[in-house]
Amino acid sequence: MKVIADFSVVPIGVGVSVSKYVAACQRVLDEMKLKTHLHAYGTNVEGEWDEVFAAIKRCHEAVHGMGAPRISTVIKVGTRTDRDQTMSDKVTSVESKLAGPT
Amino acid sequence: MKVIADFSVVPIGVGVSVSKYVAACQRVLDEMKLKTHLHAYGTNVEGEWDEVFAAIKRCHEAVHGMGAPRISTVIKVGTRTDRDQTMSDKVTSVESKLAGPT
Amino acid sequence: MKVIADFSVVPIGVGVSVSKYVAACQRVLDEMKLKTHLHAYGTNVEGEWDEVFAAIKRCHEAVHGMGAPRISTVIKVGTRTDRDQTMSDKVTSVESKLAGPT
Amino acid sequence: MKVIADFSVVPIGVGVSVSKYVAACQRVLDEMKLKTHLHAYGTNVEGEWDEVFAAIKRCHEAVHGMGAPRISTVIKVGTRTDRDQTMSDKVTSVESKLAGPT
Repeated sequence: MKVIADFSVVPIGVGVSVSKYVAACQRVLDEMKLKTHLHAYGTNVEGEWDEVFAAIKRCHEAVHGMGAPRISTVIKVGTRTDRDQTMSDKVTSVESKLAGPT
Repeated sequence: MKVIADFSVVPIGVGVSVSKYVAACQRVLDEMKLKTHLHAYGTNVEGEWDEVFAAIKRCHEAVHGMGAPRISTVIKVGTRTDRDQTMSDKVTSVESKLAGPT
Repeated sequence: MKVIADFSVVPIGVGVSVSKYVAACQRVLDEMKLKTHLHAYGTNVEGEWDEVFAAIKRCHEAVHGMGAPRISTVIKVGTRTDRDQTMSDKVTSVESKLAGPT
Repeated sequence: MKVIADFSVVPIGVGVSVSKYVAACQRVLDEMKLKTHLHAYGTNVEGEWDEVFAAIKRCHEAVHGMGAPRISTVIKVGTRTDRDQTMSDKVTSVESKLAGPT
């Protein structure tokens, strides 16, 4: 089952800056060769269900390993059986509606 | 790695009523003997990371199997290494603060 | 426009315990006489759009006022025009499906 | 109070395609001259609390106006009092960590 997901990790108990933990998660995603897009409130990721969730689990392990005692993560995950769709398809689909008549 | 999670499943393309799909997910959670709490905007679930996410995957499979072509799910997942905490601990902890001095 | 919402507030940069901040938000909701249900990963709240979001804003102000330099909040908000629905209607609707035939 | 937010709107009861509704929300954001970034699972938006949430409310009104009887939206909202931060600051901060030593 293919998914398009988005997730954001908030380490708790390690100060206000979270970027180095987000970077550690990005390294996990890159190592697993998942297609990603980093934005200002999370990361889009595309792949097979099991790979994507294995990556998020490894991200939690990495962030705990860096010293964060607590993590709260939000994941959005979309699956569809009617057709294949990529992350860039989703963005293009909205943009084509914006370009057309209201 | 133990988690306290919360998730809500939105089937897309099958009309406005979502309760039967939520019930199907609840049955999956019950079959897997996970501890849960159903509320008005999702379900709390507590257990090992792999079990909880296996349950959510099976929930997606069940909902697609019922005819929903598309699903968008939101998952919140918390992990901590500093101490054990249950779902009811979390609620009790807030309630004790409410009962005490402001 | 009536909403059923759910939100969870994560203060960042103030240690691992978040319950006193959640309690402060609960006090805001109570003062505004909003109908709520506290669960292990957030709070359900029901009311008019403007009131519910005013409450969440006041909650952010209260949590910053308690010393949290940074807050990350997740809000789920549902609106519908086809019929009235309360938080307890939503739970009852799922439970009736669970009680019935699969 | 300045916010960096992210939101995704799911219209329920109007078929599987959601892009025209997302486009309608984007038009609202553009009309309100808010700074945005559209990604594969939502839209980042930056601005004053009241403006951002007024935009999301207008988005719900627009989507209901297009015929969607039910909408479920997820909003993530971050506020901070320690310093100013833009959406692009957040992305740049992670990217600088990725470029540096592990």
